[in-house]
Amino acid sequence: LHSRLPAVGTTVFSLMSALASEHGAVNLGQGFPDFPCEPALLDHVDAAMRAGHNQYPMMTGVPALRAAIAAKIAAVYGARYDAASDITVTAGATQALTTAILCCVHPGDEVIVIEPAYDSYLPAITLAGGVPVLVSMQLGEQGYTVPWDRLAAAVTPRTRLIVINTPHNPTGSVLRAADMQALADIVRGSDMLILSDEVYEHMVYDGARHESVSRYPELAERSFVVSSFGKTYHVTGWKIGYVAAPASLMAEFRKVHQYNVFSVNTPMQHGLAGYMADPAPYLDLPAFYQRKRDLFRDGLTGSRFSLLPADGTYFQCVRYDAISALPESEFAQWLTKEIKVAAIPVSAFYSQGQESGIVRFCFAKKDDTLRLALERLSKL
Amino acid sequence: LHSRLPAVGTTVFSLMSALASEHGAVNLGQGFPDFPCEPALLDHVDAAMRAGHNQYPMMTGVPALRAAIAAKIAAVYGARYDAASDITVTAGATQALTTAILCCVHPGDEVIVIEPAYDSYLPAITLAGGVPVLVSMQLGEQGYTVPWDRLAAAVTPRTRLIVINTPHNPTGSVLRAADMQALADIVRGSDMLILSDEVYEHMVYDGARHESVSRYPELAERSFVVSSFGKTYHVTGWKIGYVAAPASLMAEFRKVHQYNVFSVNTPMQHGLAGYMADPAPYLDLPAFYQRKRDLFRDGLTGSRFSLLPADGTYFQCVRYDAISALPESEFAQWLTKEIKVAAIPVSAFYSQGQESGIVRFCFAKKDDTLRLALERLSKL
Ligand SMILES: CSCCC(=O)C(=O)O
Ligand SMILES: CSCCC(=O)C(=O)O
Repeated sequence: LHSRLPAVGTTVFSLMSALASEHGAVNLGQGFPDFPCEPALLDHVDAAMRAGHNQYPMMTGVPALRAAIAAKIAAVYGARYDAASDITVTAGATQALTTAILCCVHPGDEVIVIEPAYDSYLPAITLAGGVPVLVSMQLGEQGYTVPWDRLAAAVTPRTRLIVINTPHNPTGSVLRAADMQALADIVRGSDMLILSDEVYEHMVYDGARHESVSRYPELAERSFVVSSFGKTYHVTGWKIGYVAAPASLMAEFRKVHQYNVFSVNTPMQHGLAGYMADPAPYLDLPAFYQRKRDLFRDGLTGSRFSLLPADGTYFQCVRYDAISALPESEFAQWLTKEIKVAAIPVSAFYSQGQESGIVRFCFAKKDDTLRLALERLSKL
Repeated sequence: LHSRLPAVGTTVFSLMSALASEHGAVNLGQGFPDFPCEPALLDHVDAAMRAGHNQYPMMTGVPALRAAIAAKIAAVYGARYDAASDITVTAGATQALTTAILCCVHPGDEVIVIEPAYDSYLPAITLAGGVPVLVSMQLGEQGYTVPWDRLAAAVTPRTRLIVINTPHNPTGSVLRAADMQALADIVRGSDMLILSDEVYEHMVYDGARHESVSRYPELAERSFVVSSFGKTYHVTGWKIGYVAAPASLMAEFRKVHQYNVFSVNTPMQHGLAGYMADPAPYLDLPAFYQRKRDLFRDGLTGSRFSLLPADGTYFQCVRYDAISALPESEFAQWLTKEIKVAAIPVSAFYSQGQESGIVRFCFAKKDDTLRLALERLSKL
């Protein structure tokens, strides 16, 4: 079979999780919590199933969930999305991202992607027949930043879409208001669209606010904003996300969504809608994860790892040049097998596997898990 | 936004369900049961959630569910699929179908589709840049049949894929052993692939067996076989399905699946795996639905509708020429608004909207629902 994505391998997250379990390592690789979600969330889902919410939902999503999403976006970002025409529930954020790309990228269209980049963007662009145009983040004193001048220089008449991701996986960096202005300057007057991956929207630390594109009307009018319940509610396996976009973009998104998955698990949607009535779980999330971030950073302070800034997401990137000269992938494997702590090589997020001597740890773990990992890592 | 699927409208199922609820009609349109699933199935899902199965599952599916699927296929069809390499769990059958098409159809490749056809096939082919080649079923004394000679004549050197669907939506026809031989004769020696939509596999009546392509090694070796739990277990809104294919095909399918949805709802997968340990629910399904079919057919006998054969699926097609000369879509709307029974126009399953004076009723309903519908329909 001569397939459309011949060059794709198994994602690094699956590989490292398998290696971690094979070697009994603490798995700080793939990003998922090792603690349970709130039982109240499960109660909502169970009640929805027992109430008989088990048949096809609306293609666009359960109305109560779309209403809850629109209300949250309005409350948190002051942005107005119409629950009927501007919000669609998806089978996880990956499906949202790929569907948006399949919707608007035509063969030969260029798509600007900022590296390091989440590993689904490029295969989705390839599947659409698009041409990825890569711009690398800069790594300096402040950590990773987007070089907007270089991004502006990468724009051509064929540029159809710019993919951004904030808070950023894997670097943990977040875009600031000045970044959003720089992006607005680039797209103003063009017909370029923006795909904004904001699945870590509720994990921004140190009192900063999440700069959602939805806060900026100039950007929002041309953007697909993607988020996910898995990250926010500690249920990464539920695979429910959503897209918010102006009605004219959303109408086109839905044409592809309708024939990609048609619709999304009914009882889970009802359960999430009920649970969202209480904003506390997402409002409390920055403090919850900032404490874990600090526990993890404190534990590595004085070790031979050097910590990069971690302003958002549940990831901490570290340099290991004082420990090893191995390439990232080999170092991550060695760490998993010998030190029994799994990490993700940041090179896996670069199209050409660029090496920078940095690996990513996930701190969405029980304090005890983090302490065990720290004990092992500190020995190095 | 100049999108990739500009011509697509809202699916007829959503439109007719909305119209039915607006007019308080008995909804025999969109295919879904109006009765609950077994509580035991919900117990399994709830137990899985409470046990903490809420994080990312394996990209290919929860191993216990893949094992249960492979065991079922072996028991029912005598076919061997390796749970590790040949089965992938999908976010419903629509995602399975679209992913298979995106995986193997390259721009310009021809895909043979038999009409009337489920409405997701053509948009998925368009999205892949493929060229649909349509072959119409024949309608005779025996009901709808596939004209294999005409299908053979439609094959060209560009033919990449043949899509079949048995039991067939919307006609309720089923392929027989002779059909499978005819198909085998057509593909033998070529590199054409088969996409076999078998979501109604457990709804074949009158003692006939389901002719899964998986029973025929010559076909199975080049086939993606798609099924769905929603239809079999009365939970159409759960959106969990699967694909079975030889390892070499499945490896390519998974490359696209990995970047389309990555993986599928974890607790639902565990719940289904536990529930599948008992084969009774799917073994009993033909008798369960045959009784409903007969109740519905008996109720229309003597009416001015004329019944087409209904050998499989939970759909019954009827001619209404003795009642009205309206085109199908208008007749279905009139029936919904005035007679308060919703149906689906079969023309919606034809690329050019061909009219044959036939509408489809879904009999996956409580006996009382069917009786109420019959009472209204019999007045005509
Ligand atoms: C879909 S598995 C990857 C999880 C994740 O987002 C990450 O670890 O970066
Ligand atoms: C995805 S909604 C359509 C349900 C269905 O398969 C049908 O009614 O034919």
